[in-house]
Amino acid sequence: MSSSKSKVVDVHTHMYPPAYVELLESRKTIPLIRRFAGADDPRYVILPAEVEALEKIIASGDDASSSAAHLPGRPVTSHFSSIEQKLHFMDTHGIDISVISLANPWLDFVASADAGETAKTVSQDFSRMCEAAEGRLYFFATLPLTAPPETLLASIGHIRSLRYCRGVILGTTGLGNGLDDPALVPILHALAANRLPIFLHPHYGLPSEVWGPRATEEYGHVLPLALGFPMETTIAVARMYLAGVFDAVPDLRMLLAHSGGTLPFLAGRIESCVAHDAHFDGGSSGTPTRRTIWQVLREQIYLDAVIYSEVGLRAAIDASGGTPDRLLFGTDHPFFPPPRDGDAQGLWESVTWNAAAVKGALGEGSAAAAKVMGGNAVEVLRLYEEDRSGAGEEDGVVEEEEGDSDREGEVETVVATTKGDKKEEESKVEAKKVEEAKEEQKVTEEKPEKEEEEGKKGREEGRIEGGPVWSVLDMLGTQLGGFPSI
Amino acid sequence: MSSSKSKVVDVHTHMYPPAYVELLESRKTIPLIRRFAGADDPRYVILPAEVEALEKIIASGDDASSSAAHLPGRPVTSHFSSIEQKLHFMDTHGIDISVISLANPWLDFVASADAGETAKTVSQDFSRMCEAAEGRLYFFATLPLTAPPETLLASIGHIRSLRYCRGVILGTTGLGNGLDDPALVPILHALAANRLPIFLHPHYGLPSEVWGPRATEEYGHVLPLALGFPMETTIAVARMYLAGVFDAVPDLRMLLAHSGGTLPFLAGRIESCVAHDAHFDGGSSGTPTRRTIWQVLREQIYLDAVIYSEVGLRAAIDASGGTPDRLLFGTDHPFFPPPRDGDAQGLWESVTWNAAAVKGALGEGSAAAAKVMGGNAVEVLRLYEEDRSGAGEEDGVVEEEEGDSDREGEVETVVATTKGDKKEEESKVEAKKVEEAKEEQKVTEEKPEKEEEEGKKGREEGRIEGGPVWSVLDMLGTQLGGFPSI
Repeated sequence: MSSSKSKVVDVHTHMYPPAYVELLESRKTIPLIRRFAGADDPRYVILPAEVEALEKIIASGDDASSSAAHLPGRPVTSHFSSIEQKLHFMDTHGIDISVISLANPWLDFVASADAGETAKTVSQDFSRMCEAAEGRLYFFATLPLTAPPETLLASIGHIRSLRYCRGVILGTTGLGNGLDDPALVPILHALAANRLPIFLHPHYGLPSEVWGPRATEEYGHVLPLALGFPMETTIAVARMYLAGVFDAVPDLRMLLAHSGGTLPFLAGRIESCVAHDAHFDGGSSGTPTRRTIWQVLREQIYLDAVIYSEVGLRAAIDASGGTPDRLLFGTDHPFFPPPRDGDAQGLWESVTWNAAAVKGALGEGSAAAAKVMGGNAVEVLRLYEEDRSGAGEEDGVVEEEEGDSDREGEVETVVATTKGDKKEEESKVEAKKVEEAKEEQKVTEEKPEKEEEEGKKGREEGRIEGGPVWSVLDMLGTQLGGFPSI
Repeated sequence: MSSSKSKVVDVHTHMYPPAYVELLESRKTIPLIRRFAGADDPRYVILPAEVEALEKIIASGDDASSSAAHLPGRPVTSHFSSIEQKLHFMDTHGIDISVISLANPWLDFVASADAGETAKTVSQDFSRMCEAAEGRLYFFATLPLTAPPETLLASIGHIRSLRYCRGVILGTTGLGNGLDDPALVPILHALAANRLPIFLHPHYGLPSEVWGPRATEEYGHVLPLALGFPMETTIAVARMYLAGVFDAVPDLRMLLAHSGGTLPFLAGRIESCVAHDAHFDGGSSGTPTRRTIWQVLREQIYLDAVIYSEVGLRAAIDASGGTPDRLLFGTDHPFFPPPRDGDAQGLWESVTWNAAAVKGALGEGSAAAAKVMGGNAVEVLRLYEEDRSGAGEEDGVVEEEEGDSDREGEVETVVATTKGDKKEEESKVEAKKVEEAKEEQKVTEEKPEKEEEEGKKGREEGRIEGGPVWSVLDMLGTQLGGFPSI
């Protein structure tokens, strides 16, 4: 365990609360958890590439003879759901704090009508887990993305009130059309205004045909995990960038899984392709005004350090403006346990490789290495602030029980007014509070003028334009400033 | 122009010989070249994502009113086919030598029966172009991949005899099932034995649905070009690695377009995923024996320097073992011309960005920068050897006319016997000649015993196994050592 001055923080580490495991066990299609006679642990099957093997075993009815090595998915061990196991893992690897999150695919598969309540239950489970290990655990909450817009916005009001919540984990689908979907912009605004960073995490990878005819039988999970995941993340962020989402929501902060997928390496090519494409030439009237992808990387994006090599880590630091301030250590626990007959209670190579990369790239014991290993996470995620919102009025909020939603409507509502090219320090939101929304969905009547102006400008420029985002804004009307409680 | 001691060489630069342009103009489906009333230059349409726009304009019958900015594809200027234009471009940018290649999608769409002859014609065109600019141009040839195996092997016999040919440009489809297809191994052996490196270049990108619903209308070509291309290359090489192709053909040398796609950044994750996957655990009997992807990068792979950033270039050098010896400067001319109203006869930013990245990463005027800018290409591609094969007996071979195939059968036939983990210097093939194949397809009766042993071992190990490769070997029988002439 490191000293109090130099905390080690794991920002990429997953858990499955009991309610979520039950949900997965009840399912017939992926994602699902299923027991096989031939294996001790149940298997968690999430990848489309695994479906064929799953169906084959189910059809044969002879799963007892299948060795674990050839069963689809991955074993669901106590590492998936036990707090004690998580703490043992942390102690073994010298990790002081873990910012736990539900793993993919989160609630993407939950029916719209159920999503709000499921998200709330999962967040309450996470709150209890963090409370049970006070000071060792914080969490990224999960949003009910399939729910109606008002439920989704209300969920932000809920998680914002939870003492240990430090942001949200998000996949790449958004509301179904990706993260460049204008309909998602109000959600991103709400997250930004409430200082809830997004931990962007892949799940869907790439269509399985790109792996070729031999992949499923011969390459295990390597291609979808090693390539599909980081490519999915890269595509999602590039789409956001091209749509102007980072400009539209300048206070949005994103932590990208797996050191940004491949974004640090491809940023130059993205810049060149944009600079040479007629669609992005700034029009005949003058100079392009867009920020470069490099600027966005330096101003709105953080990268986890889950990259398994010095080569990649150095590139990630390089792409972050040459500073280690935007890299945050992570483990991806409980995935990638020791292979073969390795000791799952001992050191995990998947962790030590990443720690070694930090030491190798920045020097063991250096101030820069300490930042990546935990200092940045403490600062960026404000891990020692009792009140995550900074307003100092919410002691005890997390104690609420089901049905006690008195304080859930408390949200910060000032939509970002700063420009993305301002310095980080200047861009902190001047938060203000709204009236509590108790029995009914009380909302402020303030419509953020700046937001309206920017939206209009965006429409005129043809970036964030078209129907969905504006119709959602219209529908919500003056609700934009506040959030109904669930 | 640089001094004779420090040549600048462009290894990634395309041309379209007249015969290929005619072929494209005659086509109704992509790839095709088509004239529109609203634009001066015809348009070259190659990307699946462009098909919708193309069909819309054709259906409307009103292509006169479409501004060039909204036409599908890219303009076919003199930069595509004029030697004078290529030399002007080279002089403008201080490039001494260009190793030209046909651009994607090469001959992938040509009917099987025509492919052999088309490939031969194209290679002869390239030979004449190089001859017309003696000392300034060399070329990567194009293989007739859709042709029957014996035609394909014969084509290697043909290009191997061409004075200016220094390798082949290859897409990622191989014979239709990717580059991890066992049926391709004999072709790779033949290329390796004849010291013909492969310049691996993307074309197909990723399935268009990954770009989302807004991409085609709003993001131009950015996503398929900036992300789809490098991701395709990465997937292709990863599949080869997982299939054991680099071990099966240890003398294979590949130059990867766009600095390896994303391979340098993702190599660590690939290693970790392989190390943690039950399919690659070396079995119960002992230690895994595979080389790491890092070893393959250091031993069999070269990367072009077409990456548009110091960040990416440094990572590429890092991934190559920290040496600049495996990076080769390129331009991607004639793609990415100056945007807007830029002067296509002046400096191209798409070139200067890459040159600046080399200077920035390695120091202007440094020996390391000189290597990347041309020294490596001169050495790796042997640009000053009169006789590419090193045997010194083929003066005048390129003078052959159609029907004069006397010397085309001259090929080097020793299939690689060195191990991939030997030092580079040790692994050079001890080439030997076969008898000329004149009227008929004379072939040697020598069956390379080592090859047979390795193949058997490979089958037993279950790596390069199964039907296709062995049935091709059986079919070719003792022909493996030689190549029939076309």
